[in-house]
Amino acid sequence: MNLIEQARLAKKASSSLRMLDSETRNRVLLTFADLLIRNSDEVITANREDLTEAENSGMSSAMLDRLMLNEARIKAMAEGIRQVASLEDPLGKVLEDRVIPSGIRLKKITVPIGVIGIIFESRPNVTADCAALCFKSGNACVLKGGKESYRSCKAIVDAMKEALQSCGVSEDAVMLAERPSHAETAEFMKCREYVDLLIPRGGRNLIRAVVENAEVPAIETGAGVCHVFVDAAADLKMAEEIVINAKCSRPSVCNAMETLLVHEAAAKAFVPQIVSLLKEKGVIIYGDEKARALCDGLKEAEEASWSTEYDDLIMNLKIVSSVQEAAEHIETYGTHHSEAIISEDDESVRYFMESIDSACLYHNASTRFTDGFEFGLGAEIGISTQKLHARGPMGLSELTSYCYRLEGKGETR
Amino acid sequence: MNLIEQARLAKKASSSLRMLDSETRNRVLLTFADLLIRNSDEVITANREDLTEAENSGMSSAMLDRLMLNEARIKAMAEGIRQVASLEDPLGKVLEDRVIPSGIRLKKITVPIGVIGIIFESRPNVTADCAALCFKSGNACVLKGGKESYRSCKAIVDAMKEALQSCGVSEDAVMLAERPSHAETAEFMKCREYVDLLIPRGGRNLIRAVVENAEVPAIETGAGVCHVFVDAAADLKMAEEIVINAKCSRPSVCNAMETLLVHEAAAKAFVPQIVSLLKEKGVIIYGDEKARALCDGLKEAEEASWSTEYDDLIMNLKIVSSVQEAAEHIETYGTHHSEAIISEDDESVRYFMESIDSACLYHNASTRFTDGFEFGLGAEIGISTQKLHARGPMGLSELTSYCYRLEGKGETR
Repeated sequence: MNLIEQARLAKKASSSLRMLDSETRNRVLLTFADLLIRNSDEVITANREDLTEAENSGMSSAMLDRLMLNEARIKAMAEGIRQVASLEDPLGKVLEDRVIPSGIRLKKITVPIGVIGIIFESRPNVTADCAALCFKSGNACVLKGGKESYRSCKAIVDAMKEALQSCGVSEDAVMLAERPSHAETAEFMKCREYVDLLIPRGGRNLIRAVVENAEVPAIETGAGVCHVFVDAAADLKMAEEIVINAKCSRPSVCNAMETLLVHEAAAKAFVPQIVSLLKEKGVIIYGDEKARALCDGLKEAEEASWSTEYDDLIMNLKIVSSVQEAAEHIETYGTHHSEAIISEDDESVRYFMESIDSACLYHNASTRFTDGFEFGLGAEIGISTQKLHARGPMGLSELTSYCYRLEGKGETR
Repeated sequence: MNLIEQARLAKKASSSLRMLDSETRNRVLLTFADLLIRNSDEVITANREDLTEAENSGMSSAMLDRLMLNEARIKAMAEGIRQVASLEDPLGKVLEDRVIPSGIRLKKITVPIGVIGIIFESRPNVTADCAALCFKSGNACVLKGGKESYRSCKAIVDAMKEALQSCGVSEDAVMLAERPSHAETAEFMKCREYVDLLIPRGGRNLIRAVVENAEVPAIETGAGVCHVFVDAAADLKMAEEIVINAKCSRPSVCNAMETLLVHEAAAKAFVPQIVSLLKEKGVIIYGDEKARALCDGLKEAEEASWSTEYDDLIMNLKIVSSVQEAAEHIETYGTHHSEAIISEDDESVRYFMESIDSACLYHNASTRFTDGFEFGLGAEIGISTQKLHARGPMGLSELTSYCYRLEGKGETR
């Protein structure tokens, strides 16, 4: 089926979703989880076909691993779906309830957004994850995964459709794009009539392509050039632990540190020590002139280094003369994701917190905590790095909008 | 100065705005109001030049009236600015304050959006209004008004820049586009580097042009095909008053009713009576077949009629057989702005309220209340008809974003 036709059907289904009660939505999700387990064999067979084709076409082993499903991974997916079912209902929440000057009673209430289009790479688990989050929040969704994972995604969506049907809900609530052409995908991203929101999940190129080509509102997610600033008045032992954690605990994720900024007053005591620890962990470091003067073996940082998201055991190191210079550097080269200051000085901390325009600002903690689960949202559909609608980790609440319901007694104006 | 260069300077100014206290922001606004009054002569002289040029180029009298400024209108502008100054500060509000599982204390705090681009027609009062609302909420703004109002807008912005300077704040916080070319404006709308949000204020063509051409996130405002549905169980006297009010009290605004839907069970008793009252008021009515069978003098509604925003003493009338049919009609032809049900039947009201996807849903009240002042927001920069970020009347809160500030004791993950 054509992708625009799928979007049209999803839009139609979304009107009935808006009226489903919480219990029915949860029943669908629990059934979906059970069916995924029950259909494990079909899912794994479909996945094998995807894997064979991908292998033959020369996919890298890292990508093949992301594409691969086995019993344990299917179990983890089902567990994730059950967890989403157990979360608090984000719909029907009364955000405001007051009487406006005319005497009318105004209630501001959370409602679904409508139809959410999710564009992602060849990772089948994203299918289950997004289908569950969108459905729990009353939204229909159109999922467009990488074409290499189509059979796997289809087996997962088939289970969701079976769950929807068995609970008497329109199957069109979850749509999987059927390997659409580029032209079809481009049209989909402009289809404001049927699609209310686009969320790109994946690498920078994917996100950029969506943001530049979409007319449907899109949320930018995941670009993370995150910074840690070690101030003059830092507890250096704490700084050491946080820097190692922020860089090394999982370098491939967006909340990992890419650039370390060190106050010149702390540089002599801190830099040689941290560089040696980082090197032990295999980290390659690009340093500015001052940093290179303090220790050997640093590569020379270039202008482009400061805005590079390495997603790997590679980082930048720069010596700054003040918290102001640190903040200015972050504003110039950062992606407004997550930044940390390590300091015992209240004035520096205040300046850092108030002057930097990022989604998450940490004092004496690692940037690695920027994550829906760590924030207690129970789930995450992405980390927004834009300022409209949602910022930082997006959970179920961020997949809702609101409306005003006004109760009068015949008021006119 | 080139529009992109103006945006760049506004972005630079926005970092310092983020740190201004509430008192300074209010002092700037009160000074701005005083200076507008003191500079009345200059403003009126500039406006005269605009008016002469516009008249010579054949501008309609309605448009000329919107462009015209006099002492009273300048006083009203100054009053509006003072009122914005008196409103509660939307910044620094703690939306959440909790300890997350890792033990880190998380605060979710309102912050400015950054740089807001506002594109509007030749209405000088919008300049003062938007400059005040953006500045109060800590945002820099780039104002692009219709070229016919340039001199008037410049005189107003000059007063604001003088106020900024006298309070020690960067003048670049408020920028007025200097009659940019179409190409320059197009580039501005794609300039994500310096502009965080675009708000088009004006007619449908302007809004459509912005939404279709922008890469900067834009908020759709103001398109209003609003409906009133008179149910079988309506208090017909109340229905009469609400319908007359919704259509006739100010037909040119977006919250005025464009289509009246009447339940067939109430049609005989209600339709001839309301048609005669509306006709007395000079309203032209396009009716469907059933409506035309009930009374004379209705024009024939065509398919396109139902989605037309007349903004005038013109409307549509349709007889429906149920609240479901009414809701379906609204979902098909409406603009998700404001709809009202007049009914004493709880079940109908519930269905109407829960099934329709509009920003504002009224029970037994006129759609005309959809307005920032009526909602108690104290001000309004527009009425959003989209579902991301803000919906319905947008006041100061809707001009803010939020960030997370996290306070740790050395936590790592």
